[in-house]
Amino acid sequence: MLPRILLCDLRFAHVQLGKLFNGLAEVVTMDSPNRADFLAGFMPGGKYAGTVGVYRRNVISSARIGIFDKEIIDAISPSVKWIAHNGAGYDEVDVEQCRTKGIYVSYVPGVADDATATAALYLVISCLRHFSYGERSLRALQWKRPISAGATHDLTGRTLGILGLGGIGLRLAHLVHAFPMRVVYHSRRPKADAPDWCTYVGSVQELCEQADVLSVHVPLTKETTGAVGEKEIRAMKRGSIIVNTARGKVIDEEAMIRALEDGHLSSVGLDVYPSEPNVNPRLLEFPQNVLLPHIGGESYDTEMVREVRALTNLRDYLTGGMGKDLVPELRDMAQV
Amino acid sequence: MLPRILLCDLRFAHVQLGKLFNGLAEVVTMDSPNRADFLAGFMPGGKYAGTVGVYRRNVISSARIGIFDKEIIDAISPSVKWIAHNGAGYDEVDVEQCRTKGIYVSYVPGVADDATATAALYLVISCLRHFSYGERSLRALQWKRPISAGATHDLTGRTLGILGLGGIGLRLAHLVHAFPMRVVYHSRRPKADAPDWCTYVGSVQELCEQADVLSVHVPLTKETTGAVGEKEIRAMKRGSIIVNTARGKVIDEEAMIRALEDGHLSSVGLDVYPSEPNVNPRLLEFPQNVLLPHIGGESYDTEMVREVRALTNLRDYLTGGMGKDLVPELRDMAQV
Repeated sequence: MLPRILLCDLRFAHVQLGKLFNGLAEVVTMDSPNRADFLAGFMPGGKYAGTVGVYRRNVISSARIGIFDKEIIDAISPSVKWIAHNGAGYDEVDVEQCRTKGIYVSYVPGVADDATATAALYLVISCLRHFSYGERSLRALQWKRPISAGATHDLTGRTLGILGLGGIGLRLAHLVHAFPMRVVYHSRRPKADAPDWCTYVGSVQELCEQADVLSVHVPLTKETTGAVGEKEIRAMKRGSIIVNTARGKVIDEEAMIRALEDGHLSSVGLDVYPSEPNVNPRLLEFPQNVLLPHIGGESYDTEMVREVRALTNLRDYLTGGMGKDLVPELRDMAQV
Repeated sequence: MLPRILLCDLRFAHVQLGKLFNGLAEVVTMDSPNRADFLAGFMPGGKYAGTVGVYRRNVISSARIGIFDKEIIDAISPSVKWIAHNGAGYDEVDVEQCRTKGIYVSYVPGVADDATATAALYLVISCLRHFSYGERSLRALQWKRPISAGATHDLTGRTLGILGLGGIGLRLAHLVHAFPMRVVYHSRRPKADAPDWCTYVGSVQELCEQADVLSVHVPLTKETTGAVGEKEIRAMKRGSIIVNTARGKVIDEEAMIRALEDGHLSSVGLDVYPSEPNVNPRLLEFPQNVLLPHIGGESYDTEMVREVRALTNLRDYLTGGMGKDLVPELRDMAQV
């Protein structure tokens, strides 16, 4: 009997499944409407019994069964040996519990850098120029009535502060350099691959002091949770803008909303929120805000590449006992 | 008695007026609610009598008194000698009638290249990625429900067709080269200042055949009216996108809407329309369209520079009998 792999949220790469898994594994699609059904599926004789690998991402399946927390990790162990997460961020998988249970977790870094940096660029443009505000005005049959050119600014010559100069942050730096914007960045340490026109600053506070627009590109960790808080936001110049395409909880949302209310921030451009898919309704009260439903990393081109790469990690595990793209915290598990 | 200058739609540069015109001219602000009142103002003893120069742009004043057509040109002559138009496009001024009446017309080329190319880039991103559609989904409290990542595409690697490689088209070429997109262009003739990565093609039709996204950057003239028509649109690949930040009448709107209806075009991104401020309501029926209220060239930074430059043209005429930035059709009038 072939081992089974379980697909949660595969969207585009169905045609590629045959080539990847024929003769290697039986492919099962997750159809649980809720967590209880999902957990029951892994009981002896359950519909997911015999599953050795799980492909997942944070879209439809996590709305139904929730994140891969301790309860789920415990339930899918010892059957499952590999979780192929499709995404650059993997905070929805309890990686430490996976280590305890001997489960490998792979992720897909880098593939969505271009798509996500493009979304950040879009948010920067739209916030500075009030374009999405202008479009809502037109679609409300008001032409340009409520918007004011006097409140809008060109990108060229303004300063973009990048928090986290990883793949996405660096890609955004290159895109805005075409204008050019001036680019300053903060990371845990200066980056060797930073171009010479990217200026390193030693703290989030200093970054905020210099930036006309702050764009967040750090993963969500204990250290980055709330890293942009009251103190940092107030260090920004009056009328500044914050853009976030990383994770909602990196910013203190209450502090950000207070700063919008008293005009310290002129607008925010967000693709991510602390409790997705819920969006704080107070954010919607500011017509100049630009609010996307976490689609920054999503495009047909990017999704296809990413799904195939996540599935290939699973396939490599099945054929050779080890796949690529292990999350950094578990890389030592591969060195046995 | 000082000569008078008449301001129609000055928005930001009021503080600069003193420095520019003190002791040179009496500054009068146009306050006519309609055309009849405006025309009456130029009658002997009227409130605009003695006006030698007019500053104008196509926003509030043209909604009240209409364009500077033959009737207005005839009424303001022989008093007015210089019309300082604020804008790169000046199709709302009857330049040939101005020649007949001996009136100089200046425009402001180039200043809004950056702002307008940024708007075009925004439209390209938003159309390819369905970002403004996504934002309307979120603001309708639907998260990402109606949108489909499978219908969206990255800019990187796709082909942008630029119709008209003047200042704005060339600026857009540089902005999308950062991704990079492949860039092809058509102008009346190959441009000496085109970078080597911009490929010239000999016809609008050929441009349309190659482009995934067509972006229009030609002025409105007899030759360019309807230049993107049924034949050209149907030469584009199925699922292509058209972006227009130039003038609405360059595109055959009916042909464009037909192509949206049958899916030949996947979306259009427009900042300009044939009968502004009226927008064809059928354009609003396509949620994936991105529709701005002609704000592509508007930002505080750009407006300020542009107003001061238009006013300076008028000042130069007052002080020296000749200003800069004469529209090309009238440059021979300066060579007396």
